[in-house]
Formats: sequence, C-alpha cells, structure tokens
Amino acid sequence: MDVPKPECLKKNVNVPNKLLMGPGPSNCPPRVLKALSQPILGHMHPETFQIMDDIKEGLKYIFQTNNTLTLALSCSGHGGMEAVMCNLIEEGDTILIAKNGIWGQRAEDMANRCGATVKTIDTELGDNFSLARIQNAIQSVKPKVFFIVQGESSTGVYQPLEGIGDICHRYNCLLAVDTVASLGAVPLLVDQWNIDAIYTGSQKVLGVPPGITPISFSSRAQKIIFSRKTPVQIYYLDITQIGQQWNCFEGPRIYHHTVSSSLLVALREGLALVVEEGLEELMKRHRDCAKRLYDGLEKLGLEPFVEEVHKRLPTVTTIKVPDGVNWLDVVGYAIKHFNLELSGGLGPTANKVFRIGLMGYNAKPENVDKVLKVLQGGLQKSKNNKCLFKL
Amino acid sequence: MDVPKPECLKKNVNVPNKLLMGPGPSNCPPRVLKALSQPILGHMHPETFQIMDDIKEGLKYIFQTNNTLTLALSCSGHGGMEAVMCNLIEEGDTILIAKNGIWGQRAEDMANRCGATVKTIDTELGDNFSLARIQNAIQSVKPKVFFIVQGESSTGVYQPLEGIGDICHRYNCLLAVDTVASLGAVPLLVDQWNIDAIYTGSQKVLGVPPGITPISFSSRAQKIIFSRKTPVQIYYLDITQIGQQWNCFEGPRIYHHTVSSSLLVALREGLALVVEEGLEELMKRHRDCAKRLYDGLEKLGLEPFVEEVHKRLPTVTTIKVPDGVNWLDVVGYAIKHFNLELSGGLGPTANKVFRIGLMGYNAKPENVDKVLKVLQGGLQKSKNNKCLFKL
Repeated sequence: MDVPKPECLKKNVNVPNKLLMGPGPSNCPPRVLKALSQPILGHMHPETFQIMDDIKEGLKYIFQTNNTLTLALSCSGHGGMEAVMCNLIEEGDTILIAKNGIWGQRAEDMANRCGATVKTIDTELGDNFSLARIQNAIQSVKPKVFFIVQGESSTGVYQPLEGIGDICHRYNCLLAVDTVASLGAVPLLVDQWNIDAIYTGSQKVLGVPPGITPISFSSRAQKIIFSRKTPVQIYYLDITQIGQQWNCFEGPRIYHHTVSSSLLVALREGLALVVEEGLEELMKRHRDCAKRLYDGLEKLGLEPFVEEVHKRLPTVTTIKVPDGVNWLDVVGYAIKHFNLELSGGLGPTANKVFRIGLMGYNAKPENVDKVLKVLQGGLQKSKNNKCLFKL
Repeated sequence: MDVPKPECLKKNVNVPNKLLMGPGPSNCPPRVLKALSQPILGHMHPETFQIMDDIKEGLKYIFQTNNTLTLALSCSGHGGMEAVMCNLIEEGDTILIAKNGIWGQRAEDMANRCGATVKTIDTELGDNFSLARIQNAIQSVKPKVFFIVQGESSTGVYQPLEGIGDICHRYNCLLAVDTVASLGAVPLLVDQWNIDAIYTGSQKVLGVPPGITPISFSSRAQKIIFSRKTPVQIYYLDITQIGQQWNCFEGPRIYHHTVSSSLLVALREGLALVVEEGLEELMKRHRDCAKRLYDGLEKLGLEPFVEEVHKRLPTVTTIKVPDGVNWLDVVGYAIKHFNLELSGGLGPTANKVFRIGLMGYNAKPENVDKVLKVLQGGLQKSKNNKCLFKL
C-alpha cells in the first residue's frame, strides 16, 4: 500500500468545552449530549419508527401545524433550504425572494440551480419588509413561490410573517419561510399564518447538533409537489419519497436513505426539552435575555445595528463595531481568555458588526452578563492597543 | 396556540442495545459512542479545522489516495452517490451504469434526475462483471462516466476493480465507484487502480453513525468538475464549494454549510481505530470472519446465494432462504429472543435471501458463532411451525 498510516490520527483529539455565544451552533443541553451516545439503531427498526413518530409530533408543536408532511431531513439547515427549492420549483418556474442578508442570497443561488426564473426584492441592510412592499412585488411578479427569512442571522433582523400567507394565496403563490435562526424564540404559527413550506435548524434554539433539519409542507404545497411534471431534481431531498420513510402518506414505510439514529435520538431529546419548558416560556426566556442584553449594551455605549427594537431578532444581536476598535481583537480576547465564542459579521455585514447569539440552552441571564463583561474587557483592550500603536 | 404539547414526548425514549448483524448500520465501537457526546464546536473553529484535517489524512489512508479533493459530506451514503452524479454529470452527458442490484438502480435514478443519458449493463443476480464485458460496453457507449459498485449489499456480490480504470481512461471516461458496504473489508487502491470518484459509508466497516460520508475525486475528475459549463445542480453537494470549506484547494476556507462537529469527532475516532488496527489487519479480520461464517453455513446445510466464493462480499453474506422456511420467522426469532438483527433481502433479493452483516466492530468470531447458533434455532422454529400449520 502506497499511502502510510497518518501520524495525526495516533494523537488524541482536542474538543474543548466552549460557551458558544455566536450565531450558532449553540451548546447542546447535557441531556442531548448524553442522548447522542446511546447505541445505534437501524433505520427500519420499530424503535426508530417510534422515535420518528415522536419527532413528528414535536415538530408539529414547534411549527404549530397539523401538516401531515412534517419530518426531519438528514442534512444541515442549508439542505432544508435546498429541499424547499427543489421540491417546489421546476425548471422555468418563477420564484420571488426577499433578500436582506446572506440567507436570501443563498436562496437565490439554490433557486437558480433549480432552473427557476428568480426575481428578488431587497431592503437596506438592517431593515425588514413591509406587507405593502411584499404585496406590490407579488402582484407584479406573480411568482409560483415567495421565499422569505424570518430571522436573518447575518444582519440580526426579525421579519414578522403575519399576513404574508394571505397575500401569497390571493395571487396563487406558495409561501416558503426560513426559520433556522428564529424558531422557538419568536412566534410562529404555520397553520394560522398560511405558510406552505417551513424549515428550521437543529443547532440553534433546539440545542441539537447540526445535521438534522426539521421541515414541513402544507397540503397546498403537497398538491403542487405531487402534480409536478418532472421528478424532484435531487433524490436525497425528494420529499415524495422521504415522506414515505417518515410515514407521512398512505401506504407502507419505504426505505429512502439511512437516517442517523444518533441524530434522531438527539433531536427527540431536544424537542422533549422544548415540550417540558413550553413554547411560550421558551420565547419569553429569549425575549427577556435579549432585553437584558440591549440594556447592557446601552450602558456600555454600544449601538445595535438594527435600530428599531421590534425589528431585532432576539436570538442573534448585531452590534456596530465602534470606531477605533478592531472586531478581531475583541473576538480573540473572548475566546482566548474565557473560552467564549462571540462572532463578527457574515456576508454583507462582514467587518461591520459583532454578532451575539442567545439561543436555547445558552439563553440565560448569567450568560448575558458574562458576554457583556467580556465585551467590555475586549473593547477596552482593543482601544488601548490601538492607542499604543498610534503613539 | 392551536397545537398542544404532544404527550409522547413526555415519556422516556427507548433505545435498546441490539447486536446489529444486518447489512448496516453496524454497532459503533464504545470509543466512537463516547466521542459523540463531546461538546459541540463551531464549524469554523480552529479545533474543527484540525479535526477536518485529521479526517482528510485518515480518508486518504483508507482510500489509498493522494487526492487533494478528499473530504466527508454532511449526508448519508446516498448523498455520496448523488454528489458523484451531480458533480460529474451535466445535462445531456452520457453515463454507463453497471447494474446488478439495488445500488446500480439507485445510481440510474439519480443520474436521470441530473438530466443524463443513462445506459446500463446488467448481470444475473448474484454475479459480477468481467473486464471484457465492461470493456465492450464502454467501447460501444463511450460514456463520460462509468459507475460501478464494489460491494452490492443487496445481493452480497463483490466486484473486483483492478483494470477497470485503465479501460475507462483508454476511452476518455471517468471511473466512479461505490464502496459503501465494502471499504475496509476488501482491497481498494484508488490511485493505483486509477479510480476518479469514490465514496463510502460511515456506518458499515468504519463503525461511525450514519450522516457523514467520505468521498474523494481524482485530479482528472477535478479538471472535469472545474470546466463544467453549468453550475453543479445541487448547492448542498457542490464539491467546488465544499472543497473550499475543507481546505482542499488554494485560498482561504469559506463557509459552505454547518458541518456537524459531533459527527466529525465520531468519524475521526472511527478512522483512528482503523489506523490503530491497520488496513491489512482489518481486511484479514473480515476475511477470517466471512470464512468462519461460510464454514458454519455449510455445516447447517445452508446455501450461499453467491455461488463462487471469490465473488462473495465478506461484509454482507446472502443466504438462500430454504424451502419450507419463512424468512420473517427467523429474523423475528433472532430479534425477539437475542436482540440480534439479521436481515432479509432488499430490492431484487427481497424474500429470496437472508443477509448477514459482518462489519467493523461486529466482525468477531464470537459474533459469527452467535449468528450461526441463532440462525439454526430460528430455521428450526420456522420449519416446525410450518409443519404444525400443515398438520
């Protein structure tokens, strides 16, 4: 054999325990970490089917939906976005995408790969979309699908959704929503708000490792999917088949792919914790922590990037990097001295903001206080360094 | 809120410890299970990059390749197959698929979704392909890609690969190989054998949970991918971008999707165990266990489905269901009384065979003996029942 044993794998792996207060992943609760080390089950075992059924019920609760086509995909949140695109869109269909940060950009990229005619609306960075704006665009473009992000984690902007579904349906359009960074921290009522396709991330508020992505389609979306002229472009994300493995349709469960029982057990545990706490309490905890953070930032003289409080996403807070500060100094100080992850911007906000995550297990007053203290120390250090360099 | 808390999530989850002697997943070694419960890391943390680098070295060893474009995808083995298709194929390209079981059928399905012109060759069930047969087909079809499965787990057939790469390249064709069920148990020399695209499963010989899929592309394949006329059809599996996150190309690491650090740590541990044991020793262990199984089956008067010994896959042994036996009785007996998973057929072998897996951590003489004993008991019980019913 030509390729020898690599020396690096003879050493022990280094997995430090950090406090992840960036835009995700967040730390998993101990119960979820413990669940991860349970024995492996087969993907067609009765215990696995029971766990999948439990997950479906948990997902219906967090999405507030009775959609039968509700399940978890074996991929990261990006796969959820792509599943929405490739299942709802056929070559030549028109999609309208509300773009006010990196996630709208990604959606545009994926829709283009599906062969869609892609139209977009955008806003100033740090702003969201008004109903009037959305209505005008849908009326004029007449898309098959309208896509919007509830929690734009690159800018920290929260997008209210109420009323959008009604507008979409008035113009015979499906409403698809990304809730990766928002779900569990802000209201979401899929059925009441007439949302047709919805997905979220496991590794944000739910506190489950990445790699398993909750998704749900309305009966209206189902009808569109099952009357496609062409097969879904991607086997791995073909919801007509995955839905069979998850027992969402009539007929027997049919093997589609090998689901990871480890991630299923972890997701079930994360959902059980949400059920134990209750969605209202979970949202209140996030709101309270965000409020505590805003107050603290004000005391430090720091300016949130999203000016209007009601447009701020409680899970991810963006803060303008003050003049005379290098954001990398602050982030570096936090990780080096406190094993605490803070984050810089992403995509259009790169180098412009700090991003602080308050999600799931990490959304606690003591973590807010810790972040504020570390932020203060890091800013001081960066300013001092700058002065030193200038002298 | 309309959808109440589901009662099912208030109960504890049931995850029994079974001995998984079906065609996969196999049981994870305790060290891998322990690794799974390590704290979560961010996908862009230096420790994560180190783990990814270690994994790349481990994968180069198990594939026996120096390919720079070697990494693990965030999906099940099916995603590996689809990544091969969507990266190598553009609409209108011709692919030739060697089809002698369910995995060739799946490859055909995926290639069709990519818009390929799909040609196939097939064999009798339980047989593999001769070099002459392959050469004739490639010469006549002149495909852009030839796809073949090294370990057809639905039939238990082993496909030798030596020489196929040379034939392919003589006709300006890329060679893509599925080693999901075979890698680590039979020889594989990617560079020596001129293989252009290769992937395997995590949950077979490697003993890692499903959801993370090793893959590697030759420089020849890379050239084809980077000179595509159209973008890769699937963002989530676009190797030109995933390769950047994995630092396989020049330039900085760029975020593509949120990789699951839990699965990365588990895969690293699985690879470390392979390195510790050594590939030759790992293969010998699988060969020895398979031999012990064949001998035991003969003593029981059972007939392997694959007649010629050298065409048998050591990881998955298929056995003809004897006359007068209901395979479900036997599989049911094993799981009910011994928490032992045996399997029936799949796809073209459904109802015709038993499938016994000897993979990774589970490939031990004592497990072989246990399987033989349980098989004997189950067959007896089924025959007796049948007699009883007939009387």
